[in-house]
Amino acid sequence: MKGDLLIIGGKEDKTGAKEILQRFVEMAGGSKAVIGILTTATQYPQELGEEYTELFHSLGCDKTILFHLNTREGAEQDSLTDQLQECTGIFITGGDQVRLTSILGGTLFYEQLRHRWGHEGMPIGGTSAGAAVMSCHMIMAATETENEYIVEMGAGFCFVEDVIIDQHFSQRARFGRLMTAIAHNPQVMGIGIDENTAIEVTDDGGCFTVWGEHSVTVFDGKKLDFVDTTNHGDNQNITLSGVRLHSLAAGYTFDLRNRELITTFLEEEQQHE
Amino acid sequence: MKGDLLIIGGKEDKTGAKEILQRFVEMAGGSKAVIGILTTATQYPQELGEEYTELFHSLGCDKTILFHLNTREGAEQDSLTDQLQECTGIFITGGDQVRLTSILGGTLFYEQLRHRWGHEGMPIGGTSAGAAVMSCHMIMAATETENEYIVEMGAGFCFVEDVIIDQHFSQRARFGRLMTAIAHNPQVMGIGIDENTAIEVTDDGGCFTVWGEHSVTVFDGKKLDFVDTTNHGDNQNITLSGVRLHSLAAGYTFDLRNRELITTFLEEEQQHE
Repeated sequence: MKGDLLIIGGKEDKTGAKEILQRFVEMAGGSKAVIGILTTATQYPQELGEEYTELFHSLGCDKTILFHLNTREGAEQDSLTDQLQECTGIFITGGDQVRLTSILGGTLFYEQLRHRWGHEGMPIGGTSAGAAVMSCHMIMAATETENEYIVEMGAGFCFVEDVIIDQHFSQRARFGRLMTAIAHNPQVMGIGIDENTAIEVTDDGGCFTVWGEHSVTVFDGKKLDFVDTTNHGDNQNITLSGVRLHSLAAGYTFDLRNRELITTFLEEEQQHE
Repeated sequence: MKGDLLIIGGKEDKTGAKEILQRFVEMAGGSKAVIGILTTATQYPQELGEEYTELFHSLGCDKTILFHLNTREGAEQDSLTDQLQECTGIFITGGDQVRLTSILGGTLFYEQLRHRWGHEGMPIGGTSAGAAVMSCHMIMAATETENEYIVEMGAGFCFVEDVIIDQHFSQRARFGRLMTAIAHNPQVMGIGIDENTAIEVTDDGGCFTVWGEHSVTVFDGKKLDFVDTTNHGDNQNITLSGVRLHSLAAGYTFDLRNRELITTFLEEEQQHE
């Protein structure tokens, strides 16, 4: 059984009720949690490491372990295995997702992290770059030329299959870039997560529930009527027709396998009426 | 037969090839065009009137007529009927769409404009506020509170039925506000037009073709699976599931009646292969 995931669209609340970070502490075991903080994505690992250490302690987690892994050599140390074994959850900070994949991909740390998560059910949380890296197909960078989105994709950590995760979604107006990304392979679903908003992936990757302040936008291109990916004009955006779109606020659950909102709660409500 | 419409998402090119404005001159009759310029939306009618006069002249239209209508009384002058009769097209400038509806709604000018367009086939173009006003259901203003879009709607000029037009769409990240607007009545289709991009509505309102630099985004909620408009939480965005989405670049034509991309050109291409 795979561990659950908490995938945060960046800028989660750190001064108020801290609802999303509180949720991660609960997922990791509450007062018994031992949370590993992975700072590889950021250029400021000390500062961010200290900040999240204090935050998790303030939310009732007594023990945290800092993983300041900034080189591939550092990610090959044998001692990491025991440290990961002690963790009941790993939290991946923001920064640049390409640092995460290029420094950690294929290392001992990465293999052990996948094992703890994929076979021993350890939950993983991540924000911003730490969110983007969770999908198999990761947006590395995107540029909007005068009239066209050019999206550079790379291989992510693949904790969620068949999706592309984009973060800071509404706040940075990333609608066009995520649609462009899914146009290239409509098998892959686009999930745009707003700031201070998160999805909790449960049920062995089968569904997610929304947490936090804003919305999560899902683009499903599987039943596209038309896309001109390979023959659109030079310097022109891709045209696509018939995407299924969902916009979900906190509390709603989406079925990732069947690609639909779970509305069984409505039937339950009706039965009680 | 209704006149064709050119609905521009704002900031159309005025210094380069001026493709969109050129298109409007052609729609109005080219060198024989007499274009009326309606400046009611703007607080700077003199400046904008002069600018568009020069622009249309530079594009081969010899005669323009300025309609500086800033009061309801002014919009009741009998002489307007003859002036409108001379026009082969009317162009509505940007500004505030509520000025257009509140100053002109129900006046002689408005009635004559509708007559010239609706019965005598005179084309109408409009940019920004002049675009927003063309739909029956007009976005007057929208505010994004901490976590919720509140969209104020009003009655537009209703040149296009069953749609809500939003302008400056990608550039001002208006995705959330347009989805919120259509959630309240999924019969109404949302059309988001980017800057320096336009739709030309033809065929008695039956279809539109995209012109210009960026994209046009269409949200069709008719087959929505779920929407929680009336029972979403306080201070929470609306959740909706199963919107059909289309993103169209220049050259594509969309069937407004059947709500689908027209792809007959593909069949024609195949026949020629």
